[in-house]
Amino acid sequence: MRIALVLFDRFTALDIVGPYETLGRLPDAETVFLAERTGPVRNESGTLALTADRTLADMPHPDIVVVPGGPGQSAQMDNPVLLDWLRTADATSSWTTSVCTGSLLLAAAGLLEGRRATSHWLALTELKRLGAEPTGERVVTDGKYVTAAGVSSGIDMGLTLLGRIAGEEHAQAVQLMTEYDPRPPYDAGSPEKAPAHLVERMRTRSRFLQA
Amino acid sequence: MRIALVLFDRFTALDIVGPYETLGRLPDAETVFLAERTGPVRNESGTLALTADRTLADMPHPDIVVVPGGPGQSAQMDNPVLLDWLRTADATSSWTTSVCTGSLLLAAAGLLEGRRATSHWLALTELKRLGAEPTGERVVTDGKYVTAAGVSSGIDMGLTLLGRIAGEEHAQAVQLMTEYDPRPPYDAGSPEKAPAHLVERMRTRSRFLQA
Repeated sequence: MRIALVLFDRFTALDIVGPYETLGRLPDAETVFLAERTGPVRNESGTLALTADRTLADMPHPDIVVVPGGPGQSAQMDNPVLLDWLRTADATSSWTTSVCTGSLLLAAAGLLEGRRATSHWLALTELKRLGAEPTGERVVTDGKYVTAAGVSSGIDMGLTLLGRIAGEEHAQAVQLMTEYDPRPPYDAGSPEKAPAHLVERMRTRSRFLQA
Repeated sequence: MRIALVLFDRFTALDIVGPYETLGRLPDAETVFLAERTGPVRNESGTLALTADRTLADMPHPDIVVVPGGPGQSAQMDNPVLLDWLRTADATSSWTTSVCTGSLLLAAAGLLEGRRATSHWLALTELKRLGAEPTGERVVTDGKYVTAAGVSSGIDMGLTLLGRIAGEEHAQAVQLMTEYDPRPPYDAGSPEKAPAHLVERMRTRSRFLQA
C-alpha cells in the first residue's frame, strides 16, 4: 500500500504525524511525504520542518491519500498543482483521507460534493459552503472518503482506517505499541465540552482571521 | 521559555510531535529542534525526517528539555555528546521531560536516580535497572522531572505541563484548538487493556530485540 502524506507550507504537524504513526504501520505500507517540491516544508509557526522526499508529480497514483490541515490550507485553496494532483490521485485511490482543514482542500478539489464529512470544529460552516455535509463525529467515513476533526483526531482516524484495512487485531497491536490510552488532564477538547468563553473567543478570532 | 526538542537517529516521530504541538503552544515559547548536527534526522523507519535547526552545542541552557524515545534510543545510551548535553542542560533547566524510552536516556545521564518516573510499558524493567522508580501512571511528575509513557502519551504530558506553567485556561484553550477529545476505536492502549496474546507477543519480540 503506497500511502501519500501531503505537505504544504504552514501545515499543522500533528495533523499528519498522527495518521503517519498509526495508519503508517500497515504491514506492507510504503509511506511517502510529498509536496510540490522536495525538501523541508515548514509548519505554521516555522519552527518545525518535515522533509518531503518526493514531489506530488512523482507519485500520481498512491493507494491512500492523507491531507493535513493547518493555517496554510487557505493559501492552497486555489493552487491548481495541488488540487489537480488531488483529483488525479483520487481517481485511482483506495482511500482519500484528511485531518482538520485538510477536508476543505478535498472539498475545493470537488471530491466531497454531497458527502458526509468533517473538519476542525471552526471550519464546519466553510466545509458546508464547499458542498459537503458536515457531521459532528470525530471520524467520518463516506465510501472511500475518511475525514477527521481537528489536529489530534488524525490518530483516531489512522487507527480506524488501519482496522478497516488490516483487521482489528493489527490495529489493536498498533494502539498498544503506541500506548494510545489517552488521559487528557482536562475535558475541554470539543466546543461542547470546553468552557463557553474559550469557545467564543476562538470563534471571534477565527472570524477575524477569515475577514 | 526556550523549549529544546531533542532529535537523534531512529527516534519515534509522535513522541516529539505530541509535546511540540501542545507544550510548544506556550504563550512565549521559543521551540527549537536540536540534534548533534543540524539538518534532517530520520525516524526509525527512515520514511520521516524532521529538521534539527540547531546543534545541541548551540543551546546548552534551554528552559525545558524534551527527549523522545524510539528504537534509536539504545544506540544513544553511551553517546557522551548527548548524555553530557543532558546533564548540562538539566543543571539549569526549569523542567526536564521525556516521552517513551526517552526516560532511559535521562536515567543513563544519571538524572532519574531514585525518582518516580515512567517509560514505554515494555521499558519499565530497564528503567528500574537504571535506578528510577517506575510507576504505572501515564504522566509522572517528580520535582522538575516529567516523564510520559509510550509514544502518544506525550500529548497528555504536554498538556499537563502546559497547565502547570501557563495555567489551566491556557491548557484548555490548546486542548480545544487541537480538538483533543480522543475516541480510540479500540480499547487496547495499555497492557492491562489489550488482548493478552498481543501483550505476550510484544514482550517476546522485545526480549528478542534486547538479547
